Amino acid sequence: KPPPYVTRTKVAADRAENHMYSPVPTAQASETVSKVMQRLARLPSAFDSIELLFVTDTDQKLLGVVPLSKLLVATPQMAIDNLMNRDITRVTLTDPPEKVAEVALTHPMPAVPVVDERGCLLGAVPAHTVFKIMREEHIQDMDRLAGIWRHSDQALSAIEGDPLRRVIDRLPWLIVGTAGCVLATGLMATFESTLRTDLAVAFFIPGIVYLADAIGTQSEAIAVRGLSFSRTPVPQLLKGELKTGFYLGIALALVVFPFIWLTFNASLAFAVSIALICASSVATSIGLLLPSILSRMGKDPAYGSGPVATIVQDLLSLLIYLSVISLLIS
Amino acid sequence: KPPPYVTRTKVAADRAENHMYSPVPTAQASETVSKVMQRLARLPSAFDSIELLFVTDTDQKLLGVVPLSKLLVATPQMAIDNLMNRDITRVTLTDPPEKVAEVALTHPMPAVPVVDERGCLLGAVPAHTVFKIMREEHIQDMDRLAGIWRHSDQALSAIEGDPLRRVIDRLPWLIVGTAGCVLATGLMATFESTLRTDLAVAFFIPGIVYLADAIGTQSEAIAVRGLSFSRTPVPQLLKGELKTGFYLGIALALVVFPFIWLTFNASLAFAVSIALICASSVATSIGLLLPSILSRMGKDPAYGSGPVATIVQDLLSLLIYLSVISLLIS
Repeated sequence: KPPPYVTRTKVAADRAENHMYSPVPTAQASETVSKVMQRLARLPSAFDSIELLFVTDTDQKLLGVVPLSKLLVATPQMAIDNLMNRDITRVTLTDPPEKVAEVALTHPMPAVPVVDERGCLLGAVPAHTVFKIMREEHIQDMDRLAGIWRHSDQALSAIEGDPLRRVIDRLPWLIVGTAGCVLATGLMATFESTLRTDLAVAFFIPGIVYLADAIGTQSEAIAVRGLSFSRTPVPQLLKGELKTGFYLGIALALVVFPFIWLTFNASLAFAVSIALICASSVATSIGLLLPSILSRMGKDPAYGSGPVATIVQDLLSLLIYLSVISLLIS
Repeated sequence: KPPPYVTRTKVAADRAENHMYSPVPTAQASETVSKVMQRLARLPSAFDSIELLFVTDTDQKLLGVVPLSKLLVATPQMAIDNLMNRDITRVTLTDPPEKVAEVALTHPMPAVPVVDERGCLLGAVPAHTVFKIMREEHIQDMDRLAGIWRHSDQALSAIEGDPLRRVIDRLPWLIVGTAGCVLATGLMATFESTLRTDLAVAFFIPGIVYLADAIGTQSEAIAVRGLSFSRTPVPQLLKGELKTGFYLGIALALVVFPFIWLTFNASLAFAVSIALICASSVATSIGLLLPSILSRMGKDPAYGSGPVATIVQDLLSLLIYLSVISLLIS
């Protein structure tokens, strides 16, 4: 049976409106329990999707909610006003679905009310729809982190579907990344003389690129899940990530220094360590900045964690490593 | 229609029991509405967290649920039996929280009943707790994909917390990855003569490693979110991923071939293309296999998507690339 869903054409940017059920059961604060019950008994489908009574004033402004369990045990002459829970919150039509999920997480209500810009009740998003929004967000974050273009609603089609279809979903970001690979090849060629002087310099490239990349991915994941909660200004967050990257770089340099010293020589060990500390600090900063910039532009910050972010990280790490080596060794 | 959940992910530490509210409001199927209402009116806190009436037989076996909205508009002499929705499902005490989330997603109920192994009702997980479980799952997947060791409940502490504290959360997997970097350096040294023959071979290393890695990350993300739904045997899934990797490799080889041919020479272009196709096929396979193996071992498959998985991918890509080049060029 189809729910009384407000079917509007899905706008490009998804918003609370697309997930709203309307109408929802309402009452006025001044009404008595018996009056409301009589009215609702004549509308047997009133609670079909929303198990909550919304209380408004005469202008439809949302005042609070009454859990059905309270209504159930109330005496008939009691005023709705006395049963009402005023400690609620709401979303507006244009809020993103993520906001609906946040409100649901922080306020234990079985449905999230949706209001217009004047605060008038328009509908509500039931718990079941919030579950779907949260699952959707989860899959979207994973897809964007992995650079999968058009995500399929079904996690199954991505793992069981036709391989050619999957290639189409996965190829676009990889092609963008491949353009970055051309730059990486060019960067390596630019430093050809450095590599010719001591081929051992090349031996550390996979390791440096990997480590800076792994550190950057951590920062990206932290930014993607934390940015929407944090009220701290980005420059201050950046300072923290820069410090974290610096400390991580020092810790990892301490691990690799003795190994390189023993196997190769002290100057190479020193150069690799310095490059690692620089690359690590840059990796955490970029890992925070890319999602922040996208977020500021009104895009999903998770796009700042995909294969394009990775190739940016890789190019910077490579540039830092080869420059540091050129300066310190050649 | 959403797929039935197959329990492949068992997180030993956490289970449905830890998220259950108990006792919950119950009624017997043979009781009348008025009798149940009288009983519940004497227990004003019965519905404090669960806005749903559970119906059992005399042995406490769960038979169905009655939405409170139905109870509200029912006539007093009506039997609970007639109001009951039997199309429900349940979880057992030992089911993982993921199972609770799956049941909540696929059955529109405001709470998920928890039963013992005989099917007797023990409690229920309310919607609000399901929201928290789903958020937790989301953050856990992101953390494991990024290799963040001990995840903090607050997304905020990871982005705003003390940098030294953050280093402790982020360092362990990176140290494991660093061990892999030592192997990567060794691998490069092993193929020193190949690199000496034509230094241009080294120019493509960052690109090959990046692409195979990006492709592997896609497979990992798909496996992490898809494995728990799929009933297809792993060998069959593997065949699909292998094909996908092969096609992706061919598509990317077609992009890079003309570029390498024009800038370097045809034999290098051919060798890089072949290496890319091999590395891409291996990357998708490993990206599926690592999470599958972890899942089979009773671990969270998301651990198979972190920095350790990445270094395994990088080492294999490097080995494949250098071997193919040695065979085709040297």
